[in-house]
Amino acid sequence: MDVLQAIRERRSVRNFREEPLTREQLETILEAAVWAPTGGNIQAWKFVVVTDPRRINDIKAFSPGMLPVPAALVVACSDLERASSRGGRLAAEVLTICDVSMACQNMMLAAHALGLGSCVIRSFSQTGVARLLGLPESIRPELLVALGHPVRMPPAPRRRPQHEVVHWEAYGREPV
Amino acid sequence: MDVLQAIRERRSVRNFREEPLTREQLETILEAAVWAPTGGNIQAWKFVVVTDPRRINDIKAFSPGMLPVPAALVVACSDLERASSRGGRLAAEVLTICDVSMACQNMMLAAHALGLGSCVIRSFSQTGVARLLGLPESIRPELLVALGHPVRMPPAPRRRPQHEVVHWEAYGREPV
Repeated sequence: MDVLQAIRERRSVRNFREEPLTREQLETILEAAVWAPTGGNIQAWKFVVVTDPRRINDIKAFSPGMLPVPAALVVACSDLERASSRGGRLAAEVLTICDVSMACQNMMLAAHALGLGSCVIRSFSQTGVARLLGLPESIRPELLVALGHPVRMPPAPRRRPQHEVVHWEAYGREPV
Repeated sequence: MDVLQAIRERRSVRNFREEPLTREQLETILEAAVWAPTGGNIQAWKFVVVTDPRRINDIKAFSPGMLPVPAALVVACSDLERASSRGGRLAAEVLTICDVSMACQNMMLAAHALGLGSCVIRSFSQTGVARLLGLPESIRPELLVALGHPVRMPPAPRRRPQHEVVHWEAYGREPV
């Protein structure tokens, strides 16, 4: 699938069929994740792939924003120890979340290219999910990516008109 | 260009030819930005596109990480007022940076699809760049995306092996 088409057509999908993802699909999605750029090439991240419905359900209890159980869930985490030892405070406090977010966008585009739906979720208890997965203290779950076969593709949510959000040459200047 | 190919082949490009980008190229890249998902569809972002070499040079003074002047620079900002009024503290403190990061990844993939190079930069003075661009206090520059015609495509930086960063079903469990 064309990259610009994937970027335009990807939607946040919250309702999934029960059909599981194949190992190959998941591997393609995870490969996409780790090709995202990372600050100083530190790659201070960890991705926990969960497909066990019971475990996904347990995570869902900490994530009120998640709708019916997706076929798979990627818990995208910062590795704070690696970030801070290799990149200092900026890396641990800011770059990790940027890097993880870019990796999640890659995963969602890859999922879309495979005909799958996805949704990124931040409204969950980081402490709860960390405990449930037995994460060490230095591994902080930042974002969840729900994955599955979409029941249907939702319509595009309203986008703000470009002139409201894109400024040419200077802030507040009207488009030329 | 195929989306998975773009994800795999995109590199952080830091050396650009002098050739400018066309308005159409920039518009395609900015369109890609605003198709990224945003928490609660709040779209609390602003993108300032700078192509004036003098102005880019001024920004470069606040950004030690930026190499020779790129053909264009997108200053990707959070709109903290919009985020906090529509999504509260979580939106202003966390979702904005996630949203802006995902938008930047879309821009870099779109640039790559157009045969252009890009590099995302976080090591700059947010205060300095905000002052230079005359941004209101509620508009915070989060990331810079340098854009241009690459002098050459750099080789892929070393990626950590998948088993170091991808965990299946549980943290620390070896691949099955």
